[in-house]
Amino acid sequence: MVRPGVEFVRLALDAMGTDRAPEPEVAGAIEALEAYDGNDIEIVLVGDEQAIRAELARHERIPPGIHVHHAPDRVTADDSPASVIRRKPESSIVVGLRLQAEGEADAFVSAGSTGAVMACSLFTLRPLPGVDRPPVGTLLPTAGELCLLLDAGANIDCKPQHLVQFAHLGSIYARDALGRAKPRVGLLNIGEEPGKGDDLTIQTHELLAVEQGIRFIGNVEGRDIVKGECDVIVCDGFVGNVLLKFYESVAGYIVALLRTELDKVPDRKVELDHVFRVLDYAEYGGAPLLGLGGVSIICHGGSPPKAIHNALTVAARAVRSELVRHSREDLPILS
Amino acid sequence: MVRPGVEFVRLALDAMGTDRAPEPEVAGAIEALEAYDGNDIEIVLVGDEQAIRAELARHERIPPGIHVHHAPDRVTADDSPASVIRRKPESSIVVGLRLQAEGEADAFVSAGSTGAVMACSLFTLRPLPGVDRPPVGTLLPTAGELCLLLDAGANIDCKPQHLVQFAHLGSIYARDALGRAKPRVGLLNIGEEPGKGDDLTIQTHELLAVEQGIRFIGNVEGRDIVKGECDVIVCDGFVGNVLLKFYESVAGYIVALLRTELDKVPDRKVELDHVFRVLDYAEYGGAPLLGLGGVSIICHGGSPPKAIHNALTVAARAVRSELVRHSREDLPILS
Repeated sequence: MVRPGVEFVRLALDAMGTDRAPEPEVAGAIEALEAYDGNDIEIVLVGDEQAIRAELARHERIPPGIHVHHAPDRVTADDSPASVIRRKPESSIVVGLRLQAEGEADAFVSAGSTGAVMACSLFTLRPLPGVDRPPVGTLLPTAGELCLLLDAGANIDCKPQHLVQFAHLGSIYARDALGRAKPRVGLLNIGEEPGKGDDLTIQTHELLAVEQGIRFIGNVEGRDIVKGECDVIVCDGFVGNVLLKFYESVAGYIVALLRTELDKVPDRKVELDHVFRVLDYAEYGGAPLLGLGGVSIICHGGSPPKAIHNALTVAARAVRSELVRHSREDLPILS
Repeated sequence: MVRPGVEFVRLALDAMGTDRAPEPEVAGAIEALEAYDGNDIEIVLVGDEQAIRAELARHERIPPGIHVHHAPDRVTADDSPASVIRRKPESSIVVGLRLQAEGEADAFVSAGSTGAVMACSLFTLRPLPGVDRPPVGTLLPTAGELCLLLDAGANIDCKPQHLVQFAHLGSIYARDALGRAKPRVGLLNIGEEPGKGDDLTIQTHELLAVEQGIRFIGNVEGRDIVKGECDVIVCDGFVGNVLLKFYESVAGYIVALLRTELDKVPDRKVELDHVFRVLDYAEYGGAPLLGLGGVSIICHGGSPPKAIHNALTVAARAVRSELVRHSREDLPILS
């Protein structure tokens, strides 16, 4: 999937996104560059230059490939997402995305306000032809491999053709960024048979069943998600968002239950690191915005360095595999 | 809540519902009667009399209060739920519900086909005045107490006034069957603020905010469910069903992950029984159908005796607390 010509990658990282910015961003960027051994990757930390340089100074060794791009302003939780592009044009989100639009970077990664990153990405990177509603994807841990669920909250009240677009965009992302050869696509529904569901899922099933260019495996129920039989699951953004937030909290709840029990045993012999790792969202690579003329990946506001590192890795992979070109070429013009 | 007059309770139990029927049903009924010490409760096992008596004969001691009511037919997974009432009038589901309609029993518990129990309950017990769409509830484990989520799948494509009815019915059930004094009701949504969500949730929020007779605490997100801050959460049956099935499978998935790790340690000192119990659906009391002129509770097809026992306990409590009378009296006529 990797085009030989796209070896060198330049990633713009919003350094002001996390709750503890710029500490996790700087640490994650350094960790990423060290892991890649500095080869063919550059990371541009976008944000308050003074704060970023102060944070960099706390690290013993700065690998080559780290750059800083000053952005004086910062988006906060109080900003209305839709107004950021107009009211905070010098914020790290807008500046970071602009670098990509102007060809100075190949991808943008941010742990800032999800709504603001979505709105600004949409405005700056623009939807590709054939994409009415760019969706946001999220990676869910399963008994098999990670499953890309989309839309995870960008679009509520979807129409059947939107879900068909999600199926295409998800398939291309699963192939290019996740390395799945022939991604299996499921439609989230409340029954297995084709006639089950609400108007949206019944009509979407009819469309997906005859759609070319995707490998549709039919309806999947809530209980099927963790089985890992799908690479991509499509649903409208309301259901996807509820599910995503629920999964995160359930995993956290169960891990908390476990820790309470484990803490009662001082000389414990059970190592549950593996379990915790499977449920640890920091392992996964952020939530990609799909169907845009560029790469934009959103991380949690609470992301530790490892999560930033992973999102950068996914972003680099998306760039190298030419996700955007494939999305442009492979997506049928449906609407 | 318990009316002195309604001490004696007679529960009809579908003996042919589970995948291994009638074994778990018979064992669960015996377990329940032993737990109640035989006082003021009778259980009528409904189904193939010969099979039930053969199963009863395998138990050493049959407590008083067990009865058998013959029903020659049985609903299978191949039966269309809507056709059961007409095509299988002598099935254990239809016969068991008929006992209640005719005053021979106070409640019905079944682990048979969910769709068939719903359709037959609706037909036999009838919706109460003011109930357009009787919902099915489900109990979710949380960091606090169990939370009643409804609708868990009886109604897809709901309207705002249906969710308001769910809020009332859920509140009454939480008070009468779960013992919550002033049940807190949340609206499942994708944001906390009143203006968030799709058309359904935005309009429902407006209605619930001014609705009398319920304690509405506002929007709750997917991540809030496990916090245990609500006694009742309302949503449409599509979202509820996806969520319910997802929760069950996630809990099972995480427990399986854990067991794998624990099995690697032969002399393990960690007792995780508590964790497993919290996540064990058999502990909870089945899924009640609400808004009907009777009590009908659905269990999983894979229910062990403990789950049957608990569903019987919940059914008895619903009868004793006069759930149906309260539902009839307290529900505003909305439509």
